[in-house]
Amino acid sequence: MRYIGIVSYDGTNFVGWQIQPNGRSVQEEIEKVISQILNTPTRIHGSGRTDAGVHAIAQVFHFDVESSIVDLNKFRYSVNRLLPNDIHVKAFSIVEDNFHARYDVVDKTYLYTLNMGEYDIFNRHIITQFMRPLDVNKIKECAQLFIGKHNFKNFTTKEEDKNDFERTIFEFNVDQVDEGLVFQITGSGFMRYMVRLIVGTLVEVGLGKLDKEDIEDLLTREDRSVTPYKAPPEGLFLAHVGYGDHEDA
Amino acid sequence: MRYIGIVSYDGTNFVGWQIQPNGRSVQEEIEKVISQILNTPTRIHGSGRTDAGVHAIAQVFHFDVESSIVDLNKFRYSVNRLLPNDIHVKAFSIVEDNFHARYDVVDKTYLYTLNMGEYDIFNRHIITQFMRPLDVNKIKECAQLFIGKHNFKNFTTKEEDKNDFERTIFEFNVDQVDEGLVFQITGSGFMRYMVRLIVGTLVEVGLGKLDKEDIEDLLTREDRSVTPYKAPPEGLFLAHVGYGDHEDA
Repeated sequence: MRYIGIVSYDGTNFVGWQIQPNGRSVQEEIEKVISQILNTPTRIHGSGRTDAGVHAIAQVFHFDVESSIVDLNKFRYSVNRLLPNDIHVKAFSIVEDNFHARYDVVDKTYLYTLNMGEYDIFNRHIITQFMRPLDVNKIKECAQLFIGKHNFKNFTTKEEDKNDFERTIFEFNVDQVDEGLVFQITGSGFMRYMVRLIVGTLVEVGLGKLDKEDIEDLLTREDRSVTPYKAPPEGLFLAHVGYGDHEDA
Repeated sequence: MRYIGIVSYDGTNFVGWQIQPNGRSVQEEIEKVISQILNTPTRIHGSGRTDAGVHAIAQVFHFDVESSIVDLNKFRYSVNRLLPNDIHVKAFSIVEDNFHARYDVVDKTYLYTLNMGEYDIFNRHIITQFMRPLDVNKIKECAQLFIGKHNFKNFTTKEEDKNDFERTIFEFNVDQVDEGLVFQITGSGFMRYMVRLIVGTLVEVGLGKLDKEDIEDLLTREDRSVTPYKAPPEGLFLAHVGYGDHEDA
């Protein structure tokens, strides 16, 4: 039987989602606990990676179980009891045998928050402490340039060597809440560092150091010229992974 | 010249405010930085201690400087740059030479928040994750019993051996915000563990394990019989230290 888990984690003290030779990964912690409870080595398959320091409100993973899990609520309770306190499974449910947490993704939504005001000590792990004013209207205006299908080769790490850098951004909202600036971006998929490079570049727009033409150039130029502005990880959340048909698709 | 500082700190990784032989104290971190900048060993005097794991939104301390500090904004900027990221000085200002951060306190306000809902992973360091429902009306009703002048010998650690256990509670509000329960208590002074023992005892009321008569008994009985219900430190904040005449005084 195939199951999915929906999990939130505070990425502060992780090397990221994916198991790595050294360091504490979210995937490894969850696999350890599920394997222990099911009494058999169990691999989990996430919807995709998140980088070191990046959080998730609702990451999705699937895994297979030989027989079925009788009581999913009890199972979830046991899993959460054994997990460290910076990982929390919000739900488990059964899915079709051919469901795949990664290949079936239709869209993903990320949130990024930065604080333009005085240092916010109690949220420093989840809100980037930028602490300078930004031209929010300019940022909002330029954020619209990312909407639609674009070649994002200049908004991912140079090491990313894909055949296809095209991704579609379905929605991109930037909202000011008090002195916080919240970026909410939904797209068909996101390559490594893509959200942080988009946000970092828009921050430069807000500082008056880049403008509309620079963004358009980065999105359309022929050669590879990755933007050097990467926003730090602590403000970034994987907020939602969509598997249904996207409403705009 | 005498100065005061108003400081916030995330108490999670501190042994408390006061310098101790082992462990990281807020006082020591601040003294280290101020002494370094002023280039002379400088002692700071807090309004009182906070325990391990307890936070402050606005703790107050005073310190003396041989000459005067020319630019307090620049001074604050330098101090914050050198302080670790879980301590942040919100303001410095000059005071009368006879002002004393501890002896001149007129009232203190503490906040305590607990979460009755699903585990809140991103606020686990500042909100106690109680995760069970409570009878909020009963808690509100019994909170009123603490208002006024009482002998709080049963709401402080047994090791506390004072001549005078009398303290006055000026205000005590309990408010539910979504699934959070927020206790805001203002009093003439608080002995060690006093807020956490009051909150912990009220939680038992909310669970139906104690009632009005138990609280009244604890507040009036002749013998020492300290309540055993101590709420954990992570939900507790020193929110305000008052030095003016209390409006109810």
